Amino acid sequence: MLAQFRGEVIVISGPSGAGKTSIARRIVAELPQVAFSVSATTRSPRPGEVDGVDYFFCTPGRFDRMIEQGELLEWATYAGHRYGTPQAAVLRQVEQGIDVILVIEIQGAAIIKAKMPSAVRIFILPPGPAELQARIDRRGGIEPADLAVRLCQARVELARARDYDYVVVNDQLEEAVTKVTAIMTAERCRVTRQVGLLG
Amino acid sequence: MLAQFRGEVIVISGPSGAGKTSIARRIVAELPQVAFSVSATTRSPRPGEVDGVDYFFCTPGRFDRMIEQGELLEWATYAGHRYGTPQAAVLRQVEQGIDVILVIEIQGAAIIKAKMPSAVRIFILPPGPAELQARIDRRGGIEPADLAVRLCQARVELARARDYDYVVVNDQLEEAVTKVTAIMTAERCRVTRQVGLLG
Repeated sequence: MLAQFRGEVIVISGPSGAGKTSIARRIVAELPQVAFSVSATTRSPRPGEVDGVDYFFCTPGRFDRMIEQGELLEWATYAGHRYGTPQAAVLRQVEQGIDVILVIEIQGAAIIKAKMPSAVRIFILPPGPAELQARIDRRGGIEPADLAVRLCQARVELARARDYDYVVVNDQLEEAVTKVTAIMTAERCRVTRQVGLLG
Repeated sequence: MLAQFRGEVIVISGPSGAGKTSIARRIVAELPQVAFSVSATTRSPRPGEVDGVDYFFCTPGRFDRMIEQGELLEWATYAGHRYGTPQAAVLRQVEQGIDVILVIEIQGAAIIKAKMPSAVRIFILPPGPAELQARIDRRGGIEPADLAVRLCQARVELARARDYDYVVVNDQLEEAVTKVTAIMTAERCRVTRQVGLLG
């Protein structure tokens, strides 16, 4: 009677520049039974990018069909190109007991939660105003007006964190990775996940 | 704007022999901002036990008054002596941002949950039947009837775990300590605990 874990969808979201992808890549490298969801995109591969590893590169026509046939958990347009999360790969891995990390924008995260209520949502915050101010002071040369804008932006981002299960401030990458690892380890210990153990 | 954490009550429960106290003592030694709740008892100190550290030793009359005045979060009688959790110390530490671990019997854990719904409840299980069987095989000399009783007991204990938030199997102490540490770290990242961060 070894513990048999059901995999779970782990949504990592937050404002751009918070370090979501850096954290997610470290987690996938360090924790066993964790995979990174590979997005589909209509943009062209950049040098060095591998189809099926970095993205599933596809034509606009193929992307249209994926949308029509309900193959995408969520999708959105950025800078004229479409990006989406293929559903089949996520579901297959979850069934195999693998936690699948989706690094996703805030709107996409809300859609995932609606479709998969058991998904664990982690909001990564860039350094708070205190740390931001300290970094700015160290570098110098920032206008008070710019600082005011950045502090205001930080407050708006904080308000969004309320819709998530967990919030991790990425002041120090190592510390943030430790916290997200702890969250994923803890979530595997949830009574509701111990399907094999509790039968 | 540093994160200001509210402390939380962490209930560690489970059948006797599961290793609850060993795990809790390791957590208190390793994690910052964690304290062990010191129980009150009517039994006499054993050699080496220090009042206020191992237990608050008190007379039956004093214990009666603590019950009457609502000073105990929960209490129970074992082997002719009474044991209880003094409420004031727990609440004071939680207000100071300290997580307080209560190592407590299963009945007491249910009372704590009723009084403090936000308490995090972790159920520690002794090794499951597979590991139990393996240990027995290594030692040899156990009667099939004894094994049947122990396997049955293990199933009853598993059923109780369903009332908890998390379940950790103590097959290996180090691994169990890592998991409970992760649970406590993750719980500190909960959006609902980030009072200072989210204002």
